[in-house]
Amino acid sequence: MTDATIRALLAAVSRGDTPSDEAAARLIAAFRASPYEDLGFARVDHHRAVRQGQPEVVFGLGKSSSQVVEIARRIADRGHALLVTRATPEMGNAVSTILTGCRFDAVSRTIVRPASEAVTVPPVGPVLVCCAGTSDLPVAEEAAVCGDAMGLAVERLYDVGVAGIHRLLDARNRLEAARVLIVVAGMEGALPSVVGGLTASPVIAVPTSVGYGASFEGLAALLAMLNSCASGVGVMNIDNGFGAAALAARILRA
Amino acid sequence: MTDATIRALLAAVSRGDTPSDEAAARLIAAFRASPYEDLGFARVDHHRAVRQGQPEVVFGLGKSSSQVVEIARRIADRGHALLVTRATPEMGNAVSTILTGCRFDAVSRTIVRPASEAVTVPPVGPVLVCCAGTSDLPVAEEAAVCGDAMGLAVERLYDVGVAGIHRLLDARNRLEAARVLIVVAGMEGALPSVVGGLTASPVIAVPTSVGYGASFEGLAALLAMLNSCASGVGVMNIDNGFGAAALAARILRA
Amino acid sequence: MTDATIRALLAAVSRGDTPSDEAAARLIAAFRASPYEDLGFARVDHHRAVRQGQPEVVFGLGKSSSQVVEIARRIADRGHALLVTRATPEMGNAVSTILTGCRFDAVSRTIVRPASEAVTVPPVGPVLVCCAGTSDLPVAEEAAVCGDAMGLAVERLYDVGVAGIHRLLDARNRLEAARVLIVVAGMEGALPSVVGGLTASPVIAVPTSVGYGASFEGLAALLAMLNSCASGVGVMNIDNGFGAAALAARILRA
Amino acid sequence: MTDATIRALLAAVSRGDTPSDEAAARLIAAFRASPYEDLGFARVDHHRAVRQGQPEVVFGLGKSSSQVVEIARRIADRGHALLVTRATPEMGNAVSTILTGCRFDAVSRTIVRPASEAVTVPPVGPVLVCCAGTSDLPVAEEAAVCGDAMGLAVERLYDVGVAGIHRLLDARNRLEAARVLIVVAGMEGALPSVVGGLTASPVIAVPTSVGYGASFEGLAALLAMLNSCASGVGVMNIDNGFGAAALAARILRA
Amino acid sequence: MTDATIRALLAAVSRGDTPSDEAAARLIAAFRASPYEDLGFARVDHHRAVRQGQPEVVFGLGKSSSQVVEIARRIADRGHALLVTRATPEMGNAVSTILTGCRFDAVSRTIVRPASEAVTVPPVGPVLVCCAGTSDLPVAEEAAVCGDAMGLAVERLYDVGVAGIHRLLDARNRLEAARVLIVVAGMEGALPSVVGGLTASPVIAVPTSVGYGASFEGLAALLAMLNSCASGVGVMNIDNGFGAAALAARILRA
Amino acid sequence: MTDATIRALLAAVSRGDTPSDEAAARLIAAFRASPYEDLGFARVDHHRAVRQGQPEVVFGLGKSSSQVVEIARRIADRGHALLVTRATPEMGNAVSTILTGCRFDAVSRTIVRPASEAVTVPPVGPVLVCCAGTSDLPVAEEAAVCGDAMGLAVERLYDVGVAGIHRLLDARNRLEAARVLIVVAGMEGALPSVVGGLTASPVIAVPTSVGYGASFEGLAALLAMLNSCASGVGVMNIDNGFGAAALAARILRA
Amino acid sequence: MTDATIRALLAAVSRGDTPSDEAAARLIAAFRASPYEDLGFARVDHHRAVRQGQPEVVFGLGKSSSQVVEIARRIADRGHALLVTRATPEMGNAVSTILTGCRFDAVSRTIVRPASEAVTVPPVGPVLVCCAGTSDLPVAEEAAVCGDAMGLAVERLYDVGVAGIHRLLDARNRLEAARVLIVVAGMEGALPSVVGGLTASPVIAVPTSVGYGASFEGLAALLAMLNSCASGVGVMNIDNGFGAAALAARILRA
Amino acid sequence: MTDATIRALLAAVSRGDTPSDEAAARLIAAFRASPYEDLGFARVDHHRAVRQGQPEVVFGLGKSSSQVVEIARRIADRGHALLVTRATPEMGNAVSTILTGCRFDAVSRTIVRPASEAVTVPPVGPVLVCCAGTSDLPVAEEAAVCGDAMGLAVERLYDVGVAGIHRLLDARNRLEAARVLIVVAGMEGALPSVVGGLTASPVIAVPTSVGYGASFEGLAALLAMLNSCASGVGVMNIDNGFGAAALAARILRA
Repeated sequence: MTDATIRALLAAVSRGDTPSDEAAARLIAAFRASPYEDLGFARVDHHRAVRQGQPEVVFGLGKSSSQVVEIARRIADRGHALLVTRATPEMGNAVSTILTGCRFDAVSRTIVRPASEAVTVPPVGPVLVCCAGTSDLPVAEEAAVCGDAMGLAVERLYDVGVAGIHRLLDARNRLEAARVLIVVAGMEGALPSVVGGLTASPVIAVPTSVGYGASFEGLAALLAMLNSCASGVGVMNIDNGFGAAALAARILRA
Repeated sequence: MTDATIRALLAAVSRGDTPSDEAAARLIAAFRASPYEDLGFARVDHHRAVRQGQPEVVFGLGKSSSQVVEIARRIADRGHALLVTRATPEMGNAVSTILTGCRFDAVSRTIVRPASEAVTVPPVGPVLVCCAGTSDLPVAEEAAVCGDAMGLAVERLYDVGVAGIHRLLDARNRLEAARVLIVVAGMEGALPSVVGGLTASPVIAVPTSVGYGASFEGLAALLAMLNSCASGVGVMNIDNGFGAAALAARILRA
Repeated sequence: MTDATIRALLAAVSRGDTPSDEAAARLIAAFRASPYEDLGFARVDHHRAVRQGQPEVVFGLGKSSSQVVEIARRIADRGHALLVTRATPEMGNAVSTILTGCRFDAVSRTIVRPASEAVTVPPVGPVLVCCAGTSDLPVAEEAAVCGDAMGLAVERLYDVGVAGIHRLLDARNRLEAARVLIVVAGMEGALPSVVGGLTASPVIAVPTSVGYGASFEGLAALLAMLNSCASGVGVMNIDNGFGAAALAARILRA
Repeated sequence: MTDATIRALLAAVSRGDTPSDEAAARLIAAFRASPYEDLGFARVDHHRAVRQGQPEVVFGLGKSSSQVVEIARRIADRGHALLVTRATPEMGNAVSTILTGCRFDAVSRTIVRPASEAVTVPPVGPVLVCCAGTSDLPVAEEAAVCGDAMGLAVERLYDVGVAGIHRLLDARNRLEAARVLIVVAGMEGALPSVVGGLTASPVIAVPTSVGYGASFEGLAALLAMLNSCASGVGVMNIDNGFGAAALAARILRA
Repeated sequence: MTDATIRALLAAVSRGDTPSDEAAARLIAAFRASPYEDLGFARVDHHRAVRQGQPEVVFGLGKSSSQVVEIARRIADRGHALLVTRATPEMGNAVSTILTGCRFDAVSRTIVRPASEAVTVPPVGPVLVCCAGTSDLPVAEEAAVCGDAMGLAVERLYDVGVAGIHRLLDARNRLEAARVLIVVAGMEGALPSVVGGLTASPVIAVPTSVGYGASFEGLAALLAMLNSCASGVGVMNIDNGFGAAALAARILRA
Repeated sequence: MTDATIRALLAAVSRGDTPSDEAAARLIAAFRASPYEDLGFARVDHHRAVRQGQPEVVFGLGKSSSQVVEIARRIADRGHALLVTRATPEMGNAVSTILTGCRFDAVSRTIVRPASEAVTVPPVGPVLVCCAGTSDLPVAEEAAVCGDAMGLAVERLYDVGVAGIHRLLDARNRLEAARVLIVVAGMEGALPSVVGGLTASPVIAVPTSVGYGASFEGLAALLAMLNSCASGVGVMNIDNGFGAAALAARILRA
Repeated sequence: MTDATIRALLAAVSRGDTPSDEAAARLIAAFRASPYEDLGFARVDHHRAVRQGQPEVVFGLGKSSSQVVEIARRIADRGHALLVTRATPEMGNAVSTILTGCRFDAVSRTIVRPASEAVTVPPVGPVLVCCAGTSDLPVAEEAAVCGDAMGLAVERLYDVGVAGIHRLLDARNRLEAARVLIVVAGMEGALPSVVGGLTASPVIAVPTSVGYGASFEGLAALLAMLNSCASGVGVMNIDNGFGAAALAARILRA
Repeated sequence: MTDATIRALLAAVSRGDTPSDEAAARLIAAFRASPYEDLGFARVDHHRAVRQGQPEVVFGLGKSSSQVVEIARRIADRGHALLVTRATPEMGNAVSTILTGCRFDAVSRTIVRPASEAVTVPPVGPVLVCCAGTSDLPVAEEAAVCGDAMGLAVERLYDVGVAGIHRLLDARNRLEAARVLIVVAGMEGALPSVVGGLTASPVIAVPTSVGYGASFEGLAALLAMLNSCASGVGVMNIDNGFGAAALAARILRA
């Protein structure tokens, strides 16, 4: 149960749309449940939604498909939304076998399944996800899909690298309209500096491992972004599109 | 002129507190001025406040005192607020000689002078600046003083490193109340992960160069923060307290 | 023959449980054996148990299955306990073919076979193996299984990373009861600092290569642990669960 | 109040050496005191002795002399033992001015002052501090002096680097007699591997920044120690003699 | 004697401005001289001008003032132009004491003295030296002063960093008019990518050590420039303004 | 349309070879076309040829074959020359399926297809591509094939590493005749220094990832080239043969 | 033709074993041959034997099997000895198909074929190749097999790592008898320091990539060896067994 | 007593130049002396000359002047030769005060004092010390002076960097005549590769910290030398001129 669903539930009660008994029962069940379940190899944190306003997210890298399935089942049992990142196609198949309504996306490497709770909240935003080149797409899409799953209103502006600055300047209105900018770039990682100079909203920079040679798997872009001469740029780990979406969600709910 | 001062000016006009002629004259003067002044060694960017909602900030490191004085004079001539970071005591003296109302702070290494414009805006926040140890104070104070200069309502929570976790847990209410958290730590840089797990607001992590040996001048803390298992933590350059304040300002004005 | 088995043998003699002739014969045979056997590609060190209180351990990485089999055979011929780390399933099969009683464990990548000597020693401990996330399991299990093979009383506490600090605090009694703590973590490697602050027993920190991007194959966690602000934390090589168990054994036998 | 002093106090009561009223008063005063004092720039942690069995230690690096004096005064006010590491001569003078009975040691860069509590505990050990060369002395002495301050029975074995292996082998009896070995080395950092192979007790390896060129300020020794082929060697941060003593204390009290 | 002075001399002969005897005498003297002089600690390479079209350049870093004086004397004795880079004020004084007509410049850290040969060649260019910030001036000026000494027509465009992209776009005509662009930047080193995208002429990128923290003394800017998404950008060593000028001279004389 | 084709077209008009109507129609069509096409995942930059004098180049690494095909189709539709670098055999097949006249080269990993415009321009040069060893061929050939596609007159001088300096000195005439030198080397990367000392033309150094161990994937060669004691050497990213050709084209058209 | 074969030939002439005509014919043929053959992709250096006393060696890494075959054929055509390092089994097969008398060795990854010249020279030595562990065998064997091919009298002493120092000390006589010592070790790379301290002959240290985690592919061992506290230890690249043999050959022929 | 002096003494006895009683007395005294003296902070190793054929050498870096004086006194008391490296002028003065016949050299930073034993041995060699530039002199001179002190016949060839290859080729006869070559270079460290290709004798490469920016304090030169394409080049630590001399001595005495 997220803050938003709790608030929506109470509003429904106050509007008379939901009987107070039913609402009370749902709240009691939620709080009675143990804050986390111990699967031996993992402790599923069911209260994160309460503490942080975001449902538990499963990081697929380094887990077996059967571990992901087991965790996913527990999350779905509580009616929570499911979001798996760094998912393999095999994980996508395995989870879909036991849970209906899952969507595996190969580009962003995510599995998404909405919460079973009926209350919906209008998305907040816009969050503009920009990327420098075509090869940055997997990371940009991870940010976009995760942001969408977290209730953000996501827009996309792709292949606007600084070596063709007119492509970026043409989109100046969209840059200025965004309430949060997620800027994804590999190679020399210069895009957040230029975007940061053109806008007043928070800029979340995501270096990617796109490049070769002296890009050192994204180190060049990471260092560039940390040294951005545009002030007020927050940097994520290399290829961490999910984290950028999570920070955007923290910002827009703050 | 920042967005806020423009809005405040127009509100004053609409309330009848300021004659429209006077307001118009001020706005015209501001826009007529060239967007930047070329001093040969520097181009002072007077429109940054309009573009980014923050006054021009002077980065003292690598500049001579006389260069800083010259830039400061131009900023003051426009009536803009002055903020110099990484200032030396010598710079503090030099700028104070030509401009009244400057405050040099030795711990945060800043020179601050308010804008001459009369309109004031209530500070937004609270922004909670946390730091792990006493040695992190210069960076934490840079964030706090700069945030204050940018119109943020800054609070401080110092020496709450994770090896004595009860010191942090005792302050849980203040952590949860903050709209933005700036978390400053050197050595192993673990504080943002714990803070990020306890709160729902955006966390801005600032690694410091505090440490020795395998801290490699802050690299250990930087890498730790980039790899934080708490989702939604944005990372700044090592020792970049100013940048953290600037990102907090972007967030609270978004 | 370990110190413990020698002592147990003599105690048995003094109690009259073992005839002194038989004990003498066993001791003489053990000491007559050459301290190491030269297989050309390897020198099997049969006296390590005497010198260091731990049987010879075979490090599988970079050895062929046939080399491992050959070394295992010589160790078993002396009646020593066999412990192979970084073993592949192929090695597990190959060794099982020539030696009965082997147990290959896929998660910890170990082959274990008890010593043929009858004397048993009660395990010492407890040694608590903690890990931050599910992906750290292979390393945590290597520590646990090796510790068990070395005669330690091992307990497990998994998936207690610092971003959900309540999961760790809930286990505070178990942390305080442990005589040695082995703390395994990847990503930002913050867990040993928090554990070190909560306990008075020795903390052995094991960074793992779990993570991506700026984790640089475990470098981030390694540096964080070396810079731990909790005093008295000893650090092992990345992914070296075996070494942590060996240090725990040195400590509990000291 | 450490565990040891609490135990000693109660033993004195049970022997009739100390009236129970007096003991009770001392215990009550200790527990009533706030667990830490907030000096604004620092939170002095007075309960660490209870939690971890070691008094609060002041890390001098990056603190001003006046900050160290202020913290030292609070520790002394509670009657606790004072230990300052990485102390400068200036700090030594400053603290000596306000507190009697301090000893500043220039080689180990420490300030030591015993607790005012009368109960004494016999030192535990022996802990043997070995170092490879004369230039490693500051780090070795930091370990030795701190260990002494923590109640360890410290012995020294200096200048026994591996390029003259007979110097080390001549001391084999002392190596085997030690319950904990602290092995300090710069340059190629090979000493812990050889010592680890000769002994069964826990080995704490401390790399130093002694060297030049490709030692990269101690990185070479650090990496060597992390990769030691002797199993069960725990590694500390570069130049961290204090940490080694703290780990030895944890081990011998475990 | 450079290619240019040889050609100019022969042109003067063919025009009748210089008697062929005189020209012959000068050429013979030049070629008779040994190709290099051995000073013991240095071999002054007098034929470099012939081989490479540029006079011998003295690199001051790591040389003593007396060594620089000795080398300068030999170069001046041949009538060659003198250019000392990374010169200290002390070197400037020392060389001025023995040679007239020297100019020491504190910002670019150079000593320049024209050749005694009368023939002048019109400068080639324009070469546009751009820099991102005020702190990059020493490197930009080294490029500019050295280029001037090598016969290039140098222009300057300073403080046009990418976070205020309009400052750069305003100078688009000058960028397009340049035959070679030397682009100097520290911090995130993004300027060459943007400039490279706006122009068709060769771009020589010079990273500077300007920055702090994760700039790692210019490494961030260096890596960014090597990974530039603008094609056809050649990169120099960190802070190597001289080398950029030398490459520009090679290009314009090719 | 490149500068050269525009100039050639106008010259043809002025010579009467092309009717002005036809020329006008071609120019109008070219300029009417949008400067770039948005494919969603990519923005094909059709005006790069105008801005930079070089046709759009497709960087194959990290793109799918279908993405490359789609981009190639759009470039061919405009009649532009096609150049794909880091192409896989699969990409070569896929593009050949939809476009006639493509040439995939396995050594240089390129796909080349000439522009459909009839106007030809004589190649400029010579550009001499040197390499140190046989293993450097893929990078050297990338430079050579790309240079050829860009209209440069390319020559080759292979396997002339510095450990057999006579092989290089034997080719001294060819070195001196080159207007631009592209020098490709892995391992210790010394070749550009020697070549730079023997010639007056611009030297473009390309480090390769050839080597093992402490070559660290080309880092050794990269650092060596950046530190070249020959002045005026511009360095490209590791393995970036294409970039070297692009810089050579900028130089020869400047 | 090596120095040794030239000397042997002349000695045979002076003894009357070889007619001077025949010797002269052989010498003339050798010198008439071009010093190198240009295969386009490679220049086979046939005079290296004369210049450096060692036959041309083919480095297999990064070459195709057909390139290796082509080079091998040319070397064999001149009657020279063939040595291919870093050879794959496929290369071994391919070369054996066209040349008789080749020996491919899978452990050392070498192809060896003796020179067709009849003159034999007694091997010089002994050269003792030591290694620390079983996993170092491929590198140690590369050194041993190459040394043998170069005419050295090679002995082997394997698995004598420093954590079991008695294994090394037992072989002290062999260490002292060696005229050159090649010491191969991975992990912490400590063996050369101990060996260097026990002997007076030149020590050639070869780090290997054996290890994991913080060995960073051999970096730890490399740095350790460069920082050896035993004086007079020369270090080779990581895994460069061949180079060690080549240096040993230079030493024993000096 | 070195091997050489022992042999010379016995030869003198066999020639009747020295009475056997006197020789016996000298030998007995030498062997009776303890193999090392324990000064607390150092163990002076008096038998190193016997074990390794070279007198004890004092490494000055990181030692105090009084420590150096104390060690020097013990060495002189035994009549051994004294060699201090990395000596400061202050150390030079301090040692000269207590010992006659010392020579401090400021360039090589050495203190040299011959052995008091009368027997002299003719120097072996020649050892040719080459360096690339004037700034490499301190390291080259350290090698030369130490080699001289160790009984080597040292020659010098300075400022022969590869960017002016003719300076090196002019000295080809001297290169070929040398029995050992010590090649010292900073920056790109290419000189050993070229020298290694021109000679058959062992090449000892010494990288220096000469350079700036991406030389990273000598790392660039170190990596280049480790990757030398000339086979049989042994590499020393950065700036380790002494080590190169020690290896040369091992080689020439082998």
